[in-house]
Amino acid sequence: MKRYLVEPGKKIVLAERNPNDTRAFEGGKEKGLKVLQELNLELQALQEVLYAEQKHRVLVVLQAMDTGGKDGAIRRVFEGVNPQGVKVASFKVPTPEEMAHDFLWRVHKVVPGDGDLVIFNRSHYEDVLVVRVHEYVPKSVWKKRYDQINEFEKLLAENGTTILKFFLHIDKDEQKERLQARLDDPSKHWKFRLGDLEERKLWDQYQEAYEDVFNKTSTEYAPWYIVPANRKWYRDLVISTVLVNTLKDLKMKYPESEENLDGVVIE
Amino acid sequence: MKRYLVEPGKKIVLAERNPNDTRAFEGGKEKGLKVLQELNLELQALQEVLYAEQKHRVLVVLQAMDTGGKDGAIRRVFEGVNPQGVKVASFKVPTPEEMAHDFLWRVHKVVPGDGDLVIFNRSHYEDVLVVRVHEYVPKSVWKKRYDQINEFEKLLAENGTTILKFFLHIDKDEQKERLQARLDDPSKHWKFRLGDLEERKLWDQYQEAYEDVFNKTSTEYAPWYIVPANRKWYRDLVISTVLVNTLKDLKMKYPESEENLDGVVIE
Repeated sequence: MKRYLVEPGKKIVLAERNPNDTRAFEGGKEKGLKVLQELNLELQALQEVLYAEQKHRVLVVLQAMDTGGKDGAIRRVFEGVNPQGVKVASFKVPTPEEMAHDFLWRVHKVVPGDGDLVIFNRSHYEDVLVVRVHEYVPKSVWKKRYDQINEFEKLLAENGTTILKFFLHIDKDEQKERLQARLDDPSKHWKFRLGDLEERKLWDQYQEAYEDVFNKTSTEYAPWYIVPANRKWYRDLVISTVLVNTLKDLKMKYPESEENLDGVVIE
Repeated sequence: MKRYLVEPGKKIVLAERNPNDTRAFEGGKEKGLKVLQELNLELQALQEVLYAEQKHRVLVVLQAMDTGGKDGAIRRVFEGVNPQGVKVASFKVPTPEEMAHDFLWRVHKVVPGDGDLVIFNRSHYEDVLVVRVHEYVPKSVWKKRYDQINEFEKLLAENGTTILKFFLHIDKDEQKERLQARLDDPSKHWKFRLGDLEERKLWDQYQEAYEDVFNKTSTEYAPWYIVPANRKWYRDLVISTVLVNTLKDLKMKYPESEENLDGVVIE
């Protein structure tokens, strides 16, 4: 999966990344779904020891263009994992109170504590994406945010947080198909907003803003992965594999009892 | 499942409730687990429309004696449900800041909003259970809490919250077996605390405190269910059935789009 990792400081051109890529897996969708199931069981077991050990903190950041599959990935990658051990934080349009603080204020409140696995569905990166593309703040403000983000993530990492950031990479044609599918199915209309079409017109500006994100904020302690996401099974397979491998590398183990349990009798 | 519902104002004697009861289901464990799987799929679908509609709020309260199976029930009843749609709030020993407020302050902060399903793993009821048994506050204080709880839950209910409260009922022998199993398995020692044995000595006082809870706080708008919980599959089946039936009764549906989507073309 190294091929999807963005090396720190690397210039990324998204147009050169194939969102249909499935190279890192031998075998097609059917076999992929089986492996995904095995990975899901591994993830369940790893989450349990993460929770038991109460030592590590895990943060998974998901970003994507509209219809990129963040919701679906959360659903598929984490299904079966103990709902007590997984928290999803979704970042919507900031409230007035949130706007009255720095952009990391609302984010800091929901980072993982000991034993937690937190998923960000969108994140502080929106403050250098939608905010930049729509010029909600002047360039002089958003330009400083890359460094601020790096320092913030460094703080988390230095305090025991393992950070993984995934960009679910689809192309413009795939987005069109997915939007069209929502439009064609009346039961999906509630998901469709005309505003999504306005955002779609800004596709190139968003891609450029993402490229800057990868270039400036993929670090040793909080790396970005660009995940080919036109094929949902492959998207989920890449995320699951990286996550499981990363959690394995933590060498977690069930803690000993803090008390001496020798000769204890239960009356 | 009506047989497990506590009618408002009813005097409950827990010793008369059989924790091995499986009367409400024809067929044994194997068939029960199959039905549970079907209920789980129904729950998944209901949660999706709950989220889409953004109209109802659902609160599930779980209480039990130690080893009663709250964690296991959360795991089994909600597995496969979109982790984005289920939030678990666990109430631990209050922090100094929480202690510096009324006992419902920290609870109110985490009640469900529109479209949310929130599970309380322990709850504000601990403030008339452990707090009462250990006399952490004088009787004059905890006695008032039943009414305070009822008024609080009424507020939530009158503002669109569906509340279900489950007591997972095991007997003292079953607890002994479950504690012994933890003691016999070194990999489970981290779950074992000598303090649990001290709590076990207070079994009768806890049962009495629970009986008062049921008598005073099972209401039309926030009913208690006493779930036979010696058998895990049956426990999960009862909770799932009540939850699925309650959600069905909400007659939820996917919302229409707020916009006119006729003739929309995706460029």
